[in-house]
Amino acid sequence: NSALIADWGIELSLLFDPKCPKLESLVEKIKEIVESNEVGRLPKIPKGTRDFGREQMAIRERAFSIITSVFKMHGGVALDTPVFELRETLMGKYGEDSKLVYDLADQGGELCSLRYDLTVPFARYVAMNNISAIKRYQIAKVYRRDNPSKGRYREFYQCDFDIAGVYEPMEPDFEVVKVLTELLDKLDIGDYEIKLNHRKLLDGMLEICGVPAEKFRTVCSSIDKLDKLTFEEVKKELVEEKGVSNETAENIGSLVKTRGPPLEVLLELRKEGSKFMENEGSVVALNELEILFKALEKANALDRISFDLSLARGLDYYTGVIYEAVFKGVTQVGSIAAGGRYDKLVGMFSNKQVPAVGVSFGIERVFAIMEQQEKEKNQVIRATETEVLVSILGKDLILAAELVNELWSAGIKAEFKLTTRVQNHIKYATQTGIPWMVLVGESELRDGKVKLKDIRANQEEEVPRKDFVEVLKQRLSNP
Amino acid sequence: NSALIADWGIELSLLFDPKCPKLESLVEKIKEIVESNEVGRLPKIPKGTRDFGREQMAIRERAFSIITSVFKMHGGVALDTPVFELRETLMGKYGEDSKLVYDLADQGGELCSLRYDLTVPFARYVAMNNISAIKRYQIAKVYRRDNPSKGRYREFYQCDFDIAGVYEPMEPDFEVVKVLTELLDKLDIGDYEIKLNHRKLLDGMLEICGVPAEKFRTVCSSIDKLDKLTFEEVKKELVEEKGVSNETAENIGSLVKTRGPPLEVLLELRKEGSKFMENEGSVVALNELEILFKALEKANALDRISFDLSLARGLDYYTGVIYEAVFKGVTQVGSIAAGGRYDKLVGMFSNKQVPAVGVSFGIERVFAIMEQQEKEKNQVIRATETEVLVSILGKDLILAAELVNELWSAGIKAEFKLTTRVQNHIKYATQTGIPWMVLVGESELRDGKVKLKDIRANQEEEVPRKDFVEVLKQRLSNP
Repeated sequence: NSALIADWGIELSLLFDPKCPKLESLVEKIKEIVESNEVGRLPKIPKGTRDFGREQMAIRERAFSIITSVFKMHGGVALDTPVFELRETLMGKYGEDSKLVYDLADQGGELCSLRYDLTVPFARYVAMNNISAIKRYQIAKVYRRDNPSKGRYREFYQCDFDIAGVYEPMEPDFEVVKVLTELLDKLDIGDYEIKLNHRKLLDGMLEICGVPAEKFRTVCSSIDKLDKLTFEEVKKELVEEKGVSNETAENIGSLVKTRGPPLEVLLELRKEGSKFMENEGSVVALNELEILFKALEKANALDRISFDLSLARGLDYYTGVIYEAVFKGVTQVGSIAAGGRYDKLVGMFSNKQVPAVGVSFGIERVFAIMEQQEKEKNQVIRATETEVLVSILGKDLILAAELVNELWSAGIKAEFKLTTRVQNHIKYATQTGIPWMVLVGESELRDGKVKLKDIRANQEEEVPRKDFVEVLKQRLSNP
Repeated sequence: NSALIADWGIELSLLFDPKCPKLESLVEKIKEIVESNEVGRLPKIPKGTRDFGREQMAIRERAFSIITSVFKMHGGVALDTPVFELRETLMGKYGEDSKLVYDLADQGGELCSLRYDLTVPFARYVAMNNISAIKRYQIAKVYRRDNPSKGRYREFYQCDFDIAGVYEPMEPDFEVVKVLTELLDKLDIGDYEIKLNHRKLLDGMLEICGVPAEKFRTVCSSIDKLDKLTFEEVKKELVEEKGVSNETAENIGSLVKTRGPPLEVLLELRKEGSKFMENEGSVVALNELEILFKALEKANALDRISFDLSLARGLDYYTGVIYEAVFKGVTQVGSIAAGGRYDKLVGMFSNKQVPAVGVSFGIERVFAIMEQQEKEKNQVIRATETEVLVSILGKDLILAAELVNELWSAGIKAEFKLTTRVQNHIKYATQTGIPWMVLVGESELRDGKVKLKDIRANQEEEVPRKDFVEVLKQRLSNP
């Protein structure tokens, strides 16, 4: 900042005569602003975190209520886990991203880290409690020491839905993908598509292209960049960094272009002469995908899916179907939701394997879109549900307590205010969207009455003191 | 553990003849158990934390919904803050308890700590956003490196309701105490009382007893132990550790016994010849308390209050009314909720003072009581809201998808299962409390029908395939 001011100084001195009093007063003004900023320094919150104030909380509650209703529609049970886990629980699960894990300081006792996602704590929970089947959801914050300058949060919400246990082929996979489409449809935040692939098909593809097995995962992480880089760039990485031959890279390049309506792509990959039909893993994958696609078709969800051989997903632990939801026609936004099948993760914690499949939904972008939608509607986002404001003209708290308590006892959401300036109360009710006011001044009290004010209609009426709760109840139930 | 086993070994050898084969087999058995524990070592969670599984979540959601409804009844706005704050935000706020703050590891960048309560982050939020008045609630986890062996959690929920801003005397104090009584009444978890005192009266009392001003806070923290220690023990601490004279300690001892119905105690403290009426701060406090008590009386909340001169509260930042809710007739349980007025905390973050008053409600004990109540009722605590289980006899996922999707589209909460063993499905529905099943086998399919099963009535009926959603809708709306 001081470098910037110095630069400005030089620029200004070119415009003004350095001896001109105007320049001096300008410099004084700048100094003043800089200093007053220093004096009134306000507290800060950590980088990459944020508070949810009134309006953001109202939007967040709406989003969570939609999401929870979808999860409950499918019989999900809620689970909550601690915000930190033993460090050993998170070790060896995130590959290169492990460097983004937040550690707690060693203050004696156990070594812990903040959770990086909800999947690993879920697997830990299933293993620890020896659970053989569970369909759970969890909406909670996760923590990543990512670069906040890119607009990324270091504390952010994930909404996860996972099914663990042994089922008929594709039974839970179908439901998880269906849940994802329902979430995105009900949130109504824009046109989207779900890219879908299968790890066994991906491995089959790499085998067909001539990639040696030990390079599958590292080649996958290059392919995973195809949504951000051109194929030429990815190819360069494959050949120069990962030691893949030029021919193999070209083979990969021609196959990863395969994408489109699931049943059509499926037909294409299975047609006579297709190399995939000679590859054992690929045949298994294609058979599973056929069941999945047909089930999704019956559930009116298939038109949202794009079968896409370029989808690779970074995480190591996926073993079957993988998917990622993106907004249509928007590039560089990254995924809104992603997930897949991970059959070996629970087994990393115990000697019992419990296969599982799930989806993780990132909600921060959804909040931003919903906030924008609200602003465009130009409506007051109410931060409270207050129905009545009791406005006492004066300082009689005891009178206020008596009146407002009658409303509370009747189950009416009410606030109260004391003051001699009734206009302030009316302004408050209008701004916060409170529909009714009870106005009580000296004259009303003397006559055993109170005044009711309908804020939106801007109408007032006097009612007997003893009846005002009953009258308001009626008014509120017939708005 | 091995020391324990060795001790047992010695004890056992006294009971048995060391050569007796019984002893040998017993030792073998113990060895076996110990070893199998080692082999099947399950993952753990950090000490003092816990998972909320199905049933706990159902109870937690019920408790939170009651608490939130009370907060909303009073026009509270929701706020959420990050789980960690800059370390400087928490510094110098908790006195001796600062050692219980969890720090994040220094991984480069800012130094952060997990929040210790919700009050300091709230004050930071008010200061940072230059807010002059707000009534907010927050339900969130806080973190304390306390001794978990005492059954204390290191991660636990607090439910806070605070009013910041300048109001008429006792206007927000009245509402916060009223909110506390409503919370405890609505949760219905046992008979309670709210001990209430005033910091200015406490200081006045110490002045009257002859305690020098610089010892007020340290003497307060001794008095605060009176709920756990006898007066003799506290007196010893006062005289031997805090350097208070014997006479002064005796004076304190006679005054802190003062407690009882608020208006009676008030009359007592104000009667002719009372030393309190000659003490400036005490007079201010007693005038404020009179307004508060009369307002609470009008709101039918005063019978819950005990005016108690022995209530001191540990935290430094209180400046006015203080209170603490405890269960009646139960000792050593500690408080369920506590709070008070803190007029200087926001000013620690900015050069603008915003007076505030609030209450902090600890929910872990409430969960435990509600769980116990549920168990005594002997009812199934439903972890899901599933209304219908679609049971497909066989492996036809595509048929299942079609049927269950019709239910989901109609807004009916439904699960589905494939198997040849229908008895497992019926067992699952019964155990999880699902009221209806749709049974589909080969014969039903052939005849264009499905079977509906009412689990509780144990009755079945056949309906045409095309009508089953409509029929279920009717059955579910008229249970």
